[in-house]
Order: sequence, then C-alpha cells, then structure tokens
Amino acid sequence: MRIKHFVMAETGWPECANTLKGVILDLCGVLYDSGEGDGVAIPGSIEAVKKLKESDLKLRFCTNETQAAREKFVAKLQRLGFDISVNEVFPPAPAAVGVLRERGLRPHLLVHDGLLSEFDAVDKTNPNCVIIGDAAEKFSYQNLNEAFRVLISQEKPVLLSLGQGRYYKETDGLKLDVGVYMKALEYACDVKAEVIGKPSPTFFQSVLNDMGVQPHEALMIGDDLVNDVGGAQHCGMKGVQVRTGKYRLAIQRIHNTNSSNSILGQIWVKFIMNH
Amino acid sequence: MRIKHFVMAETGWPECANTLKGVILDLCGVLYDSGEGDGVAIPGSIEAVKKLKESDLKLRFCTNETQAAREKFVAKLQRLGFDISVNEVFPPAPAAVGVLRERGLRPHLLVHDGLLSEFDAVDKTNPNCVIIGDAAEKFSYQNLNEAFRVLISQEKPVLLSLGQGRYYKETDGLKLDVGVYMKALEYACDVKAEVIGKPSPTFFQSVLNDMGVQPHEALMIGDDLVNDVGGAQHCGMKGVQVRTGKYRLAIQRIHNTNSSNSILGQIWVKFIMNH
Repeated sequence: MRIKHFVMAETGWPECANTLKGVILDLCGVLYDSGEGDGVAIPGSIEAVKKLKESDLKLRFCTNETQAAREKFVAKLQRLGFDISVNEVFPPAPAAVGVLRERGLRPHLLVHDGLLSEFDAVDKTNPNCVIIGDAAEKFSYQNLNEAFRVLISQEKPVLLSLGQGRYYKETDGLKLDVGVYMKALEYACDVKAEVIGKPSPTFFQSVLNDMGVQPHEALMIGDDLVNDVGGAQHCGMKGVQVRTGKYRLAIQRIHNTNSSNSILGQIWVKFIMNH
Repeated sequence: MRIKHFVMAETGWPECANTLKGVILDLCGVLYDSGEGDGVAIPGSIEAVKKLKESDLKLRFCTNETQAAREKFVAKLQRLGFDISVNEVFPPAPAAVGVLRERGLRPHLLVHDGLLSEFDAVDKTNPNCVIIGDAAEKFSYQNLNEAFRVLISQEKPVLLSLGQGRYYKETDGLKLDVGVYMKALEYACDVKAEVIGKPSPTFFQSVLNDMGVQPHEALMIGDDLVNDVGGAQHCGMKGVQVRTGKYRLAIQRIHNTNSSNSILGQIWVKFIMNH
C-alpha cells in the first residue's frame, strides 16, 4: 500500500510543479536522522534547503517533534548546518498552548522533559485534560497510569495528542512514537484523542496561512505516508514521500534488502532543483 | 450501556436457574480485590464459594490473572480463606503454552516476573512471536520497544495477548491492564493481536469441556462487562456482572456517589444461594 500511494504522489508531480508556490518540509527522517547528540544530516539535505531558499518558492518546516522546545531543536538543526530560523518551524506544542487557552483547559502533561518549558505560562493546577507528547523514557507504567487516572476521573475525558506517529528511526534503531501511547490511553478510557500536529488539517492550514499560499499551490515532503503525505493530500496539497527515514526501514523489512540511501533518498532533491 | 447490559443479564436469571449445571467465577474483583500483599477478600465471597461447593453445581474459576504462576496465586486465594484448588483454576498462561507448542512458536515474553516460570519449558531462542501479559511495572518504554522490534522484524508479526482488559482495581486505585499495551503494539505494527484468555471462545470452551456441561447450562459471573459477561454470552452461556471490583468504580465515577459494596456487591450471592 505504501508503494502504491507513493506512485500516486509521484504521478502528480508535473502538474504540481507548474503552480507550485510553497514547499513544506518535514524535519526528522527528511533532513536528518535523530539519535545520540544532534543526530546526523541526511546527505544532500543541507544543500537542498539552501537551493530552496535561493528559489522563488516559500519554505516552511512542519514537524511533530515534541522532545524539545522549538528554540532548542532549531539550534540543533543550525549546528547540523541547516539555514533554518525559529519562525519558519511549526511544531505541535505552541499550537497546543493556543488550544488550551481557547478552551480554558488545564493540562496534565505526559511529555518529554525537554518540552516542559513550552508550557511554562500555562495553568496546570487541578488538571481537566491530558496532553501527551513523545515522552520516550518517561512513558513508564507509573506515568501512563497517572495520565489515565486524570482522564478517567473526568466526566468527559479530553486527551490531546501531539502527533499520532507509530514509530521513528534513531541512529540505534526504531523507537515507539506518541501515537502508540495515544492509542493505549484511548482504549483505556474509551475516548478519541484530538491530534494536534500532523496530520491535523488545522495544523497544516496554519502553516499555509503563514506562507500566504493556497493548498493546491503547496507541496508537503515527508517520510511518513499517513501523517505527511496523507495529511497534506487531505488538505488539498500535494504530498511526496521521501525514501529516507522510516520509509527506508520499512522497505528493508519488506524486501529484506539494503536500499541505498544515497540513491533512493534524494529523488525529491532532484525534483526541487529542476523546478 | 453498562447498566442496560446488566439488566439484560438480570432478566435472564430465572430461565437460566432451571437448567443450570455449572458456574464459572472470575476471581479478581469478584472474590477479592488485589493490592499490596494478598489483597482482601470481598465480604461474603468466601461463604459463597463454600455454598457453591456444597451444591450440585459444578464450579470452576476462570481468570485473566497473569502476574503470577497458577500455583502461586491459588496459594494466595487459599491464604485469603477460599476453598480452591489448582486444577479448578483456568488462567491464560497454560493455554498460551499450548498454542505455542501447536504452532511451533518461540516467544519473546513481555510479562510479569511472577509469570515467567509458566514458560520455563518453552523454547525462547530466536523469537518469532511476542506474548504480552499484565507486566505492570515492567511496561517500561525500553521493554515495549524491545517487544515492538521483535514484531516489526517479522514478515507477519504474531502478537499473543494474555487477556485484553483495560484496567483493574487494586486497593490503592485503578491500574492499566494488558489490553492497553496490546492496543499500543497493535497500532505500532499494524497487526491484530490474538487474545488468549477471556473473552476468547476457545478459552471458555476449554473450561466448559473440563466441567462436561453445555454452554446453555453454564453461568459466568464476573465484574467485566466485555470480557466476562460479553465473552460468556458470545459462547451461548449466561453472563452476570457483579457490582464489585471495577463495576463499582465505574458507577462511582458516573454518578459521583459512593455505592455500598456490601449491598450492591452481593446480588449474585443471593441468586446462587437461592438456587
């Protein structure tokens, strides 16, 4: 199914190229692979960002990164060599803070320590909802129980999930992502989580608004078929799946072969550079 | 919905009582509440088991308990004062060992330390499936990742889940059960788990076979609407939900009142004693 969808996106390229005004890039698995320290830039990606910035295309970065506050992971990208600034990057946490304010919600946070500072100004006393992010090692039995008890004590439990990813690739292998624990709490409490971040249409629209382009004029490039490609297509944008990041791992698993990152991973770079 | 289902079960009692030959009791939440040490017997339940054993009804105990090997938790029940022997009790782990042997499966175990001895005789080298039980504190991020990596490395991942419960009550509050983590791994790997234990029809049928009674001659009594009552009804048995255990907690949450355990919890005892 992954390959079929990829081909569908591929055949849409020529038409898309004629009207393209803006490009949205996913970060992890597209520009870099995360892991110990800063992780590693994917070959060609630093140059691709540079070329895009020199072109007449508008460029934004849309990520479901929730292990660090925005300033911190943008600084990491800059250390890796990317020409990226904080106001070009859209992660779920600032969007979540907006939702909390609009609806008068006070969160119990099950998120990575690195993300806590994004919620410094938010009232967290007597919580009436749960926010779950990619908490990684903090996804202990005890912490998941605590979040569960907050939810089950509410008449109408509200669960806000910063993304719904299944897993991601770090340099030492695949790691479970926030969506897995979102599903766990959904089942425990018989509730449906509200996803903030990709593939939420509201989230994509906020990025399009910031660029000032229409959905059909924009292209989303990511390594996740559901959250990047599917989410973008659902909003009327074009979506392209790269063959780096988690895509490559899935293909290796299916075909039991080692795909070449340097050949397969850079198809989108060629496309952008020929624009 | 819970209450409606309960009433449906209740109206089935008189008809059921005429043909009743066997009774299957759930353990946790029906006979005792688990917690520190051995937990506590629910008032009236020791006497109810005694009365049932003195009657002409056949009696078995069917549990999704997976924190301890069968011998150990039967010893605990005996210490609490129950007249129960090992061969009357049906937990999922021995059934799982049978499934592994039949299908030539070698498990990676994500289970409570107390359950490991049930799998002593099983080949666990180079695992080609994952067995998940109520691992409680062992449900760390690292351990769930390990199980996930075993599954995702298989062409057709096989996930065997010892039960599918959402949560259970201990003396210090509600705790997440195995079903929550089953759903997490199902989502991560895009697979459907095979449930061994209640509400699996195969599991109930093995208990009926041991009693030598037909489904319509048997009554299942538990505190879980889906796994006990629903599971039993799906097999053609009658199912009754007691108002102890997790039922009482759910009602308290909905109505924000303290239901009286001593009045509500013992309806089934009266029914059995009038048989």
